[in-house]
Amino acid sequence: MKFCSSCGHPVESRIPAGDNRPRYVCQQCETIHYQNPRIVAGTVPTWEGKILLCRRAIEPRYGYWTLPAGFMENSETTEEAASRETLEEAMAHVELAGLYTMIHVPHIDQVHMFYRAHMTEARFGAGDETLEAELFELDRIPWDEISFPTVRRTLEHFVEDFQRNEFPLRISDIRHRLKPSDPQKSSSR
Amino acid sequence: MKFCSSCGHPVESRIPAGDNRPRYVCQQCETIHYQNPRIVAGTVPTWEGKILLCRRAIEPRYGYWTLPAGFMENSETTEEAASRETLEEAMAHVELAGLYTMIHVPHIDQVHMFYRAHMTEARFGAGDETLEAELFELDRIPWDEISFPTVRRTLEHFVEDFQRNEFPLRISDIRHRLKPSDPQKSSSR
Repeated sequence: MKFCSSCGHPVESRIPAGDNRPRYVCQQCETIHYQNPRIVAGTVPTWEGKILLCRRAIEPRYGYWTLPAGFMENSETTEEAASRETLEEAMAHVELAGLYTMIHVPHIDQVHMFYRAHMTEARFGAGDETLEAELFELDRIPWDEISFPTVRRTLEHFVEDFQRNEFPLRISDIRHRLKPSDPQKSSSR
Repeated sequence: MKFCSSCGHPVESRIPAGDNRPRYVCQQCETIHYQNPRIVAGTVPTWEGKILLCRRAIEPRYGYWTLPAGFMENSETTEEAASRETLEEAMAHVELAGLYTMIHVPHIDQVHMFYRAHMTEARFGAGDETLEAELFELDRIPWDEISFPTVRRTLEHFVEDFQRNEFPLRISDIRHRLKPSDPQKSSSR
Protein backbone atom coordinates (compact mmCIF):
# COMPACT_ATOMS: atom_id res chain seq x y z
CA MET A 1 0.00 0.00 0.00
CA LYS A 2 1.44 3.32 -1.14
CA PHE A 3 -1.57 5.62 -1.47
CA CYS A 4 -4.69 6.37 0.55
CA SER A 5 -7.74 4.69 -0.96
CA SER A 6 -9.94 7.46 0.47
CA CYS A 7 -8.16 10.57 -0.81
CA GLY A 8 -5.31 9.39 -3.06
CA HIS A 9 -2.48 11.00 -1.08
CA PRO A 10 0.63 9.01 -0.02
CA VAL A 11 0.43 6.89 3.12
CA GLU A 12 3.16 6.32 5.66
CA SER A 13 3.69 3.36 7.96
CA ARG A 14 3.53 4.37 11.61
CA ILE A 15 1.96 3.35 14.91
CA PRO A 16 -1.21 5.40 15.42
CA ALA A 17 -2.01 6.91 18.84
CA GLY A 18 -3.58 4.28 21.07
CA ASP A 19 -2.39 1.44 18.85
CA ASN A 20 0.56 -0.90 19.28
CA ARG A 21 1.57 -1.85 15.77
CA PRO A 22 2.44 -0.08 12.51
CA ARG A 23 -0.43 0.78 10.16
CA TYR A 24 -0.62 2.57 6.87
CA VAL A 25 -1.82 6.07 7.73
CA CYS A 26 -2.69 8.76 5.20
CA GLN A 27 -0.45 11.81 5.51
CA GLN A 28 -3.27 14.03 4.28
CA CYS A 29 -6.60 12.80 5.71
CA GLU A 30 -5.19 10.66 8.57
CA THR A 31 -7.28 7.63 7.57
CA ILE A 32 -5.83 4.46 9.09
CA HIS A 33 -5.82 1.55 6.66
CA TYR A 34 -6.01 -1.71 8.60
CA GLN A 35 -5.03 -4.96 6.92
CA ASN A 36 -6.46 -8.23 8.16
CA PRO A 37 -6.32 -11.96 7.35
CA ARG A 38 -8.57 -13.45 4.72
CA ILE A 39 -10.67 -16.58 4.93
CA VAL A 40 -10.44 -19.31 2.30
CA ALA A 41 -13.52 -21.55 2.43
CA GLY A 42 -13.96 -24.90 0.73
CA THR A 43 -15.41 -28.38 0.95
CA VAL A 44 -14.49 -32.05 0.97
CA PRO A 45 -17.22 -33.17 -1.45
CA THR A 46 -18.01 -36.87 -1.39
CA TRP A 47 -20.18 -39.27 -3.37
CA GLU A 48 -20.47 -42.93 -2.40
CA GLY A 49 -17.20 -42.87 -0.48
CA LYS A 50 -15.22 -41.07 -3.19
CA ILE A 51 -13.78 -37.55 -2.96
CA LEU A 52 -14.28 -34.96 -5.67
CA LEU A 53 -11.06 -33.15 -6.61
CA CYS A 54 -10.41 -30.43 -9.18
CA ARG A 55 -7.31 -30.01 -11.31
CA ARG A 56 -6.38 -26.34 -11.29
CA ALA A 57 -6.60 -24.34 -14.52
CA ILE A 58 -4.98 -21.29 -12.93
CA GLU A 59 -1.80 -20.31 -11.15
CA PRO A 60 -0.54 -20.83 -8.57
CA ARG A 61 -0.19 -24.60 -8.84
CA TYR A 62 -1.63 -24.91 -12.34
CA GLY A 63 -2.31 -28.58 -13.12
CA TYR A 64 -2.33 -29.74 -9.49
CA TRP A 65 -5.32 -31.33 -7.77
CA THR A 66 -7.21 -29.37 -5.16
CA LEU A 67 -10.34 -29.40 -3.08
CA PRO A 68 -12.80 -26.75 -4.27
CA ALA A 69 -12.08 -23.62 -2.22
CA GLY A 70 -11.59 -19.91 -2.56
CA PHE A 71 -11.65 -16.55 -0.86
CA MET A 72 -14.77 -15.81 1.15
CA GLU A 73 -16.61 -12.78 -0.24
CA ASN A 74 -18.26 -9.92 1.60
CA SER A 75 -21.93 -10.43 2.51
CA GLU A 76 -21.71 -14.21 2.76
CA THR A 77 -21.15 -16.83 5.46
CA THR A 78 -18.35 -19.39 5.43
CA GLU A 79 -20.91 -22.06 4.52
CA GLU A 80 -22.19 -20.01 1.62
CA ALA A 81 -18.63 -19.38 0.45
CA ALA A 82 -17.75 -23.08 0.67
CA SER A 83 -20.86 -24.13 -1.26
CA ARG A 84 -20.40 -21.40 -3.86
CA GLU A 85 -16.79 -22.34 -4.53
CA THR A 86 -17.79 -25.99 -4.90
CA LEU A 87 -20.39 -25.05 -7.47
CA GLU A 88 -18.06 -22.65 -9.32
CA GLU A 89 -14.99 -24.87 -9.45
CA ALA A 90 -16.47 -28.38 -9.54
CA MET A 91 -19.99 -27.61 -10.79
CA ALA A 92 -21.28 -29.76 -7.94
CA HIS A 93 -24.22 -29.13 -5.61
CA VAL A 94 -23.53 -30.18 -2.03
CA GLU A 95 -25.15 -30.37 1.39
CA LEU A 96 -22.67 -29.33 4.06
CA ALA A 97 -22.07 -31.72 6.95
CA GLY A 98 -20.15 -29.64 9.47
CA LEU A 99 -16.95 -27.66 9.72
CA TYR A 100 -14.08 -30.13 9.45
CA THR A 101 -10.71 -28.36 9.33
CA MET A 102 -9.64 -24.84 10.21
CA ILE A 103 -6.01 -24.31 9.33
CA HIS A 104 -4.21 -21.05 10.02
CA VAL A 105 -1.54 -20.00 7.55
CA PRO A 106 -0.22 -16.93 9.36
CA HIS A 107 2.75 -16.22 7.09
CA ILE A 108 0.34 -15.49 4.24
CA ASP A 109 -2.39 -14.00 6.47
CA GLN A 110 -5.00 -16.63 5.68
CA VAL A 111 -7.35 -18.97 7.54
CA HIS A 112 -8.49 -21.99 5.53
CA MET A 113 -11.77 -23.69 6.47
CA PHE A 114 -13.04 -26.90 4.92
CA TYR A 115 -16.53 -28.30 5.43
CA ARG A 116 -17.45 -31.92 4.85
CA ALA A 117 -20.02 -32.01 2.07
CA HIS A 118 -22.30 -34.61 0.55
CA MET A 119 -22.90 -34.26 -3.18
CA THR A 120 -26.64 -34.24 -3.78
CA GLU A 121 -26.24 -36.03 -7.13
CA ALA A 122 -23.41 -37.61 -9.12
CA ARG A 123 -23.07 -34.56 -11.35
CA PHE A 124 -19.96 -32.44 -11.52
CA GLY A 125 -17.72 -30.74 -14.08
CA ALA A 126 -14.92 -28.30 -14.73
CA GLY A 127 -15.64 -24.67 -13.86
CA ASP A 128 -13.63 -21.79 -15.30
CA GLU A 129 -10.72 -22.28 -12.91
CA THR A 130 -10.66 -26.07 -13.32
CA LEU A 131 -9.13 -28.27 -16.04
CA GLU A 132 -11.09 -31.35 -14.95
CA ALA A 133 -12.95 -32.66 -11.92
CA GLU A 134 -12.83 -36.28 -10.87
CA LEU A 135 -14.11 -38.58 -8.11
CA PHE A 136 -11.24 -40.43 -6.42
CA GLU A 137 -11.37 -43.57 -4.30
CA LEU A 138 -9.64 -42.80 -0.99
CA ASP A 139 -6.75 -45.13 -1.86
CA ARG A 140 -6.29 -43.47 -5.25
CA ILE A 141 -5.80 -39.86 -4.17
CA PRO A 142 -3.01 -38.31 -6.29
CA TRP A 143 -0.78 -37.43 -3.32
CA ASP A 144 2.15 -36.40 -5.52
CA GLU A 145 0.07 -33.78 -7.30
CA ILE A 146 -1.81 -32.03 -4.50
CA SER A 147 -2.01 -28.25 -4.82
CA PHE A 148 -1.58 -26.79 -1.34
CA PRO A 149 -0.49 -27.84 2.17
CA THR A 150 -3.92 -27.10 3.67
CA VAL A 151 -5.60 -29.30 1.05
CA ARG A 152 -3.09 -32.08 1.70
CA ARG A 153 -3.60 -31.93 5.45
CA THR A 154 -7.39 -31.89 5.13
CA LEU A 155 -7.29 -34.92 2.83
CA GLU A 156 -4.93 -36.77 5.20
CA HIS A 157 -7.28 -36.12 8.11
CA PHE A 158 -10.27 -37.21 6.06
CA VAL A 159 -8.74 -40.51 4.93
CA GLU A 160 -7.80 -41.29 8.53
CA ASP A 161 -11.16 -40.26 10.01
CA PHE A 162 -13.12 -42.06 7.30
CA GLN A 163 -11.92 -45.40 8.70
CA ARG A 164 -13.75 -44.90 11.97
CA ASN A 165 -16.50 -42.67 10.60
CA GLU A 166 -15.76 -39.88 13.09
CA PHE A 167 -14.94 -36.41 11.88
CA PRO A 168 -14.06 -34.09 14.74
CA LEU A 169 -13.21 -30.46 13.99
CA ARG A 170 -9.46 -30.22 13.51
CA ILE A 171 -7.80 -26.87 14.10
CA SER A 172 -4.10 -26.49 13.30
CA ASP A 173 -1.48 -24.18 11.84
CA ILE A 174 0.84 -24.40 8.85
CA ARG A 175 3.72 -22.06 9.41
CA HIS A 176 6.35 -22.93 6.85
CA ARG A 177 6.93 -20.63 3.93
CA LEU A 178 6.36 -21.66 0.34
CA LYS A 179 9.55 -21.87 -1.66
CA PRO A 180 8.84 -20.49 -5.11
CA SER A 181 11.83 -22.31 -6.59
CA ASP A 182 10.60 -25.66 -5.36
CA PRO A 183 6.81 -25.84 -5.47
CA GLN A 184 6.74 -29.62 -5.22
CA LYS A 185 8.66 -29.69 -1.99
CA SER A 186 6.70 -26.79 -0.56
CA SER A 187 3.52 -28.82 -0.41
CA SER A 188 4.97 -31.35 2.01
CA ARG A 189 4.27 -30.83 5.69
CA MET B 1 -12.65 3.09 -1.87
CA LYS B 2 -12.04 5.93 -4.32
CA PHE B 3 -8.34 5.70 -5.19
CA CYS B 4 -5.88 2.94 -6.05
CA SER B 5 -3.68 2.09 -3.07
CA SER B 6 -0.90 1.00 -5.46
CA CYS B 7 -0.65 4.03 -7.78
CA GLY B 8 -3.00 6.71 -6.38
CA HIS B 9 -5.20 7.02 -9.48
CA PRO B 10 -9.03 6.82 -9.27
CA VAL B 11 -10.67 3.40 -9.19
CA GLU B 12 -13.93 2.40 -10.81
CA SER B 13 -16.35 -0.33 -9.80
CA ARG B 14 -16.72 -2.97 -12.52
CA ILE B 15 -16.74 -6.71 -13.05
CA PRO B 16 -13.25 -7.78 -14.13
CA ALA B 17 -12.81 -10.31 -16.93
CA GLY B 18 -13.25 -13.83 -15.60
CA ASP B 19 -14.98 -12.60 -12.45
CA ASN B 20 -18.67 -12.48 -11.61
CA ARG B 21 -19.04 -9.55 -9.22
CA PRO B 22 -18.08 -5.87 -9.14
CA ARG B 23 -14.63 -4.96 -7.81
CA TYR B 24 -12.77 -1.72 -7.44
CA VAL B 25 -10.36 -1.64 -10.39
CA CYS B 26 -7.73 1.02 -10.97
CA GLN B 27 -8.32 2.97 -14.18
CA GLN B 28 -4.58 3.51 -14.55
CA CYS B 29 -2.70 0.37 -13.44
CA GLU B 30 -5.63 -2.10 -13.63
CA THR B 31 -4.99 -3.42 -10.11
CA ILE B 32 -8.07 -5.18 -8.76
CA HIS B 33 -8.76 -4.33 -5.11
CA TYR B 34 -10.61 -7.20 -3.50
CA GLN B 35 -12.50 -6.66 -0.26
CA ASN B 36 -13.11 -9.57 2.08
CA PRO B 37 -14.72 -10.27 5.46
CA ARG B 38 -12.80 -9.77 8.67
CA ILE B 39 -12.50 -12.09 11.64
CA VAL B 40 -13.25 -10.93 15.17
CA ALA B 41 -11.69 -13.31 17.71
CA GLY B 42 -12.37 -13.43 21.42
CA THR B 43 -12.81 -15.60 24.47
CA VAL B 44 -15.26 -16.61 27.17
CA PRO B 45 -12.80 -16.33 30.09
CA THR B 46 -13.83 -18.18 33.23
CA TRP B 47 -12.56 -18.49 36.79
CA GLU B 48 -14.23 -20.81 39.28
CA GLY B 49 -17.49 -20.85 37.34
CA LYS B 50 -17.63 -17.09 36.82
CA ILE B 51 -17.33 -15.26 33.50
CA LEU B 52 -15.02 -12.30 33.00
CA LEU B 53 -16.67 -9.40 31.20
CA CYS B 54 -15.33 -5.99 30.19
CA ARG B 55 -17.22 -2.71 30.19
CA ARG B 56 -16.33 -0.90 26.98
CA ALA B 57 -14.39 2.37 27.16
CA ILE B 58 -14.80 3.01 23.42
CA GLU B 59 -17.53 3.38 20.84
CA PRO B 60 -19.52 1.67 19.55
CA ARG B 61 -21.44 0.60 22.64
CA TYR B 62 -19.46 2.66 25.14
CA GLY B 63 -20.33 1.56 28.69
CA TYR B 64 -21.82 -1.80 27.69
CA TRP B 65 -20.45 -5.16 28.83
CA THR B 66 -18.63 -7.36 26.36
CA LEU B 67 -16.52 -10.46 26.10
CA PRO B 68 -12.91 -9.60 25.28
CA ALA B 69 -12.62 -9.71 21.47
CA GLY B 70 -11.25 -7.78 18.54
CA PHE B 71 -10.11 -7.89 14.96
CA MET B 72 -7.65 -10.64 14.12
CA GLU B 73 -4.35 -9.18 12.91
CA ASN B 74 -2.13 -10.32 10.06
CA SER B 75 0.52 -12.92 10.96
CA GLU B 76 -1.44 -14.47 13.80
CA THR B 77 -3.84 -17.38 14.32
CA THR B 78 -7.38 -17.09 15.64
CA GLU B 79 -6.18 -18.55 18.96
CA GLU B 80 -3.39 -16.00 19.19
CA ALA B 81 -5.83 -13.20 18.36
CA ALA B 82 -8.32 -14.40 20.98
CA SER B 83 -5.65 -14.66 23.68
CA ARG B 84 -4.10 -11.31 22.76
CA GLU B 85 -7.44 -9.50 22.92
CA THR B 86 -8.15 -11.06 26.31
CA LEU B 87 -4.84 -9.81 27.61
CA GLU B 88 -5.23 -6.36 26.06
CA GLU B 89 -8.83 -5.72 27.10
CA ALA B 90 -9.15 -7.66 30.36
CA MET B 91 -5.47 -7.95 31.35
CA ALA B 92 -6.09 -11.66 31.89
CA HIS B 93 -3.93 -14.61 30.92
CA VAL B 94 -5.92 -17.59 29.67
CA GLU B 95 -5.53 -21.14 28.42
CA LEU B 96 -7.87 -21.76 25.51
CA ALA B 97 -10.23 -24.72 25.71
CA GLY B 98 -11.55 -25.09 22.20
CA LEU B 99 -13.45 -23.07 19.63
CA TYR B 100 -16.95 -22.51 20.99
CA THR B 101 -18.98 -20.20 18.74
CA MET B 102 -18.52 -19.05 15.17
CA ILE B 103 -21.14 -16.50 14.25
CA HIS B 104 -21.35 -14.99 10.78
CA VAL B 105 -22.51 -11.38 10.55
CA PRO B 106 -22.71 -11.05 6.76
CA HIS B 107 -24.32 -7.61 6.62
CA ILE B 108 -21.20 -6.14 8.20
CA ASP B 109 -18.77 -8.58 6.54
CA GLN B 110 -17.53 -10.15 9.77
CA VAL B 111 -17.09 -13.60 11.27
CA HIS B 112 -16.97 -13.68 15.08
CA MET B 113 -15.21 -16.57 16.80
CA PHE B 114 -15.18 -17.14 20.55
CA TYR B 115 -12.99 -19.68 22.32
CA ARG B 116 -13.69 -21.02 25.78
CA ALA B 117 -10.82 -19.99 28.02
CA HIS B 118 -9.66 -20.80 31.53
CA MET B 119 -8.01 -17.94 33.39
CA THR B 120 -4.67 -19.15 34.68
CA GLU B 121 -4.95 -16.97 37.80
CA ALA B 122 -7.55 -14.69 39.38
CA ARG B 123 -5.88 -11.56 38.04
CA PHE B 124 -7.50 -9.19 35.59
CA GLY B 125 -7.97 -5.49 35.02
CA ALA B 126 -9.06 -2.75 32.65
CA GLY B 127 -7.04 -2.37 29.47
CA ASP B 128 -7.03 0.81 27.39
CA GLU B 129 -10.36 0.01 25.73
CA THR B 130 -12.03 -1.09 28.97
CA LEU B 131 -13.64 0.93 31.80
CA GLU B 132 -13.65 -2.00 34.21
CA ALA B 133 -13.45 -5.79 34.14
CA GLU B 134 -15.48 -7.99 36.46
CA LEU B 135 -16.17 -11.65 37.16
CA PHE B 136 -19.89 -12.43 36.99
CA GLU B 137 -21.76 -15.40 38.41
CA LEU B 138 -23.76 -16.99 35.57
CA ASP B 139 -27.04 -15.87 37.14
CA ARG B 140 -25.76 -12.30 37.50
CA ILE B 141 -24.84 -11.56 33.89
CA PRO B 142 -25.97 -7.99 33.04
CA TRP B 143 -28.23 -9.02 30.16
CA ASP B 144 -29.69 -5.53 29.74
CA GLU B 145 -26.26 -4.05 29.13
CA ILE B 146 -24.59 -6.47 26.71
CA SER B 147 -22.63 -4.85 23.90
CA PHE B 148 -23.25 -6.87 20.75
CA PRO B 149 -25.57 -9.60 19.44
CA THR B 150 -22.70 -12.09 18.95
CA VAL B 151 -21.60 -11.59 22.57
CA ARG B 152 -25.17 -12.06 23.79
CA ARG B 153 -25.65 -15.24 21.78
CA THR B 154 -22.31 -16.67 22.95
CA LEU B 155 -23.18 -15.95 26.58
CA GLU B 156 -26.65 -17.49 26.17
CA HIS B 157 -25.11 -20.66 24.73
CA PHE B 158 -22.53 -20.77 27.48
CA VAL B 159 -25.04 -20.44 30.32
CA GLU B 160 -27.14 -23.22 28.78
CA ASP B 161 -24.20 -25.53 28.06
CA PHE B 162 -22.64 -24.94 31.47
CA GLN B 163 -25.57 -26.80 33.10
CA ARG B 164 -24.63 -30.09 31.42
CA ASN B 165 -20.91 -29.37 31.08
CA GLU B 166 -20.91 -29.94 27.32
CA PHE B 167 -19.71 -27.27 24.97
CA PRO B 168 -20.17 -28.28 21.32
CA LEU B 169 -19.04 -25.89 18.59
CA ARG B 170 -22.00 -23.70 17.67
CA ILE B 171 -22.03 -22.13 14.22
CA SER B 172 -24.77 -19.67 13.35
CA ASP B 173 -25.57 -16.41 11.60
CA ILE B 174 -26.88 -13.05 12.74
CA ARG B 175 -28.42 -11.30 9.78
CA HIS B 176 -30.41 -8.42 11.16
CA ARG B 177 -29.11 -4.92 10.74
CA LEU B 178 -28.19 -2.74 13.66
CA LYS B 179 -30.54 0.19 14.08
CA PRO B 180 -28.43 3.19 15.04
CA SER B 181 -31.48 4.93 16.51
CA ASP B 182 -32.25 2.04 18.82
CA PRO B 183 -29.03 0.40 19.96
CA GLN B 184 -30.66 -1.34 22.89
CA LYS B 185 -33.19 -3.16 20.75
CA SER B 186 -30.54 -4.06 18.19
CA SER B 187 -28.79 -6.34 20.60
CA SER B 188 -31.80 -8.64 20.99
CA ARG B 189 -31.87 -11.69 18.79
